[in-house]
Amino acid sequence: MTDPAEPAGPGPVGIVAGGGRLPLEVAEAVEATGRKVVLACIDGEADLALDHPEAHVFRWGQVGGAVDFMTARGARDVVFVGTITRRPDFKAMRLDAGAWRRVPKILRVLVGGDDSVVRRALALVEEEGFRVRGIAEVAPGLLVKSGTLGRCEPEPDDLADAALGMKALGALGPYDVGQAAVVTRGRVVAIEAAEGTDRMLERVVELRKAGRVREQGGVLVKRSKPGQDLRTELPTIGASTIAGVAAARLSGVYLEAGRTLVADRKGTIAAADAARLFLVAGTDGEEGP
Amino acid sequence: MTDPAEPAGPGPVGIVAGGGRLPLEVAEAVEATGRKVVLACIDGEADLALDHPEAHVFRWGQVGGAVDFMTARGARDVVFVGTITRRPDFKAMRLDAGAWRRVPKILRVLVGGDDSVVRRALALVEEEGFRVRGIAEVAPGLLVKSGTLGRCEPEPDDLADAALGMKALGALGPYDVGQAAVVTRGRVVAIEAAEGTDRMLERVVELRKAGRVREQGGVLVKRSKPGQDLRTELPTIGASTIAGVAAARLSGVYLEAGRTLVADRKGTIAAADAARLFLVAGTDGEEGP
Repeated sequence: MTDPAEPAGPGPVGIVAGGGRLPLEVAEAVEATGRKVVLACIDGEADLALDHPEAHVFRWGQVGGAVDFMTARGARDVVFVGTITRRPDFKAMRLDAGAWRRVPKILRVLVGGDDSVVRRALALVEEEGFRVRGIAEVAPGLLVKSGTLGRCEPEPDDLADAALGMKALGALGPYDVGQAAVVTRGRVVAIEAAEGTDRMLERVVELRKAGRVREQGGVLVKRSKPGQDLRTELPTIGASTIAGVAAARLSGVYLEAGRTLVADRKGTIAAADAARLFLVAGTDGEEGP
Repeated sequence: MTDPAEPAGPGPVGIVAGGGRLPLEVAEAVEATGRKVVLACIDGEADLALDHPEAHVFRWGQVGGAVDFMTARGARDVVFVGTITRRPDFKAMRLDAGAWRRVPKILRVLVGGDDSVVRRALALVEEEGFRVRGIAEVAPGLLVKSGTLGRCEPEPDDLADAALGMKALGALGPYDVGQAAVVTRGRVVAIEAAEGTDRMLERVVELRKAGRVREQGGVLVKRSKPGQDLRTELPTIGASTIAGVAAARLSGVYLEAGRTLVADRKGTIAAADAARLFLVAGTDGEEGP
């Protein structure tokens, strides 16, 4: 197993691509740093990533083929990018020779626990001789920088809510929980744990319906956990997050600068502008030195 | 307005009673301290409290009557206890003389915000010459003491989960959020904010269904916020909480000793025993001196 702390090397980056625009955006951002990419696209998920000239499709069962493909192209650094909406159908799966050899290990990972699965999957990939990298390592330009991303500006109340949310999430950091919170006018009304940001935003819609949140506006705050493995868990928003924020009748989104990501940046900013929501990155509410 | 810091006086305690067994339990616990009680029971809510010999029913519109009743009996300390399930129907309300005089103030409170409503309602009651007390002040014996309340004992894993939940909630304390959390085997999977404990437990049921929580067991932790106004927000569980914990397939409940309450203690403990859930109070996970 390689040392994950080793700096990203100069060869091509292998991108194991799921759905959405993010794999292509990562590919472009990696190429902008002067490195080549090869994309192993998951069949049925990575439709958009297929547009890339270096993209090849692999079914879930073709692990061996994907490994060989990336190895042959000289990719030692790999990143996992994009959404997976369908669970692999193991019955319909036709495993290639490479996969058969690896099946016992793969099954051990997939039938295991919950949180540890990701970590063990990474270890498995590293056993194959790859170094698993994060988007932050191979395409740091994609991380949001401090400032306003769209046309709308936050009000002072919004920034106060953002700072409160950042502080509350920061306090939870040591307990490995809380990448997001909703703050409405000085009151933390929702904190995300295992349910994810979309479900938390749906909860705010319900709280408003039930009259348990009556304050106008409010802010969705996204922050990475201290010590979080940004290779697999980079806090990310996209256009669907904006739709959830609009449904929850909040004023905008505050992202931790340098440690969060906006997928489909152009589309997401356009969605925020259209919904008159601010989209701001910064480090308000972080402890000073 | 009286000083809420003033110690509870020796006269009778006025109990403004809503639904459930808790008003009667508070009445008994107050009487056990040697003080008398008078109960102003909210019509349509406080059915059980009516069993008390000193109980009188008042409709929402009869604020003046309730105030006069408690004043005439010499009650200067009042506590608000019990559930309110129905919103008052202001159209159908027949206001008494005392209420008419107070209506502008009452309306101002009821149509106001959300969180501030309670505080302003308390201020209103104190303007009438009462001292609003908490259950902790007039019936400290009702608060849970350290130890096991039912027949089931927690396992070491459960106590580790409880300590983690207590710590995470403690970290959130300064941000006025989080009276409860669910921890499953070292992982905080849900944190309560504005939605309340019952909805949070329903979320854990959904998380299990979606396969996002797979760990066996786990613990519901309830903790009061530091600086919390225990007059109005004493963290409380009851038999319905136990039903929610059972539905979420947790192992039991951990309560902060001395600052939380078990309503219908006998029924709630019986429910926990029947569901084979532990019910423990303690101070695990609190910062040491």
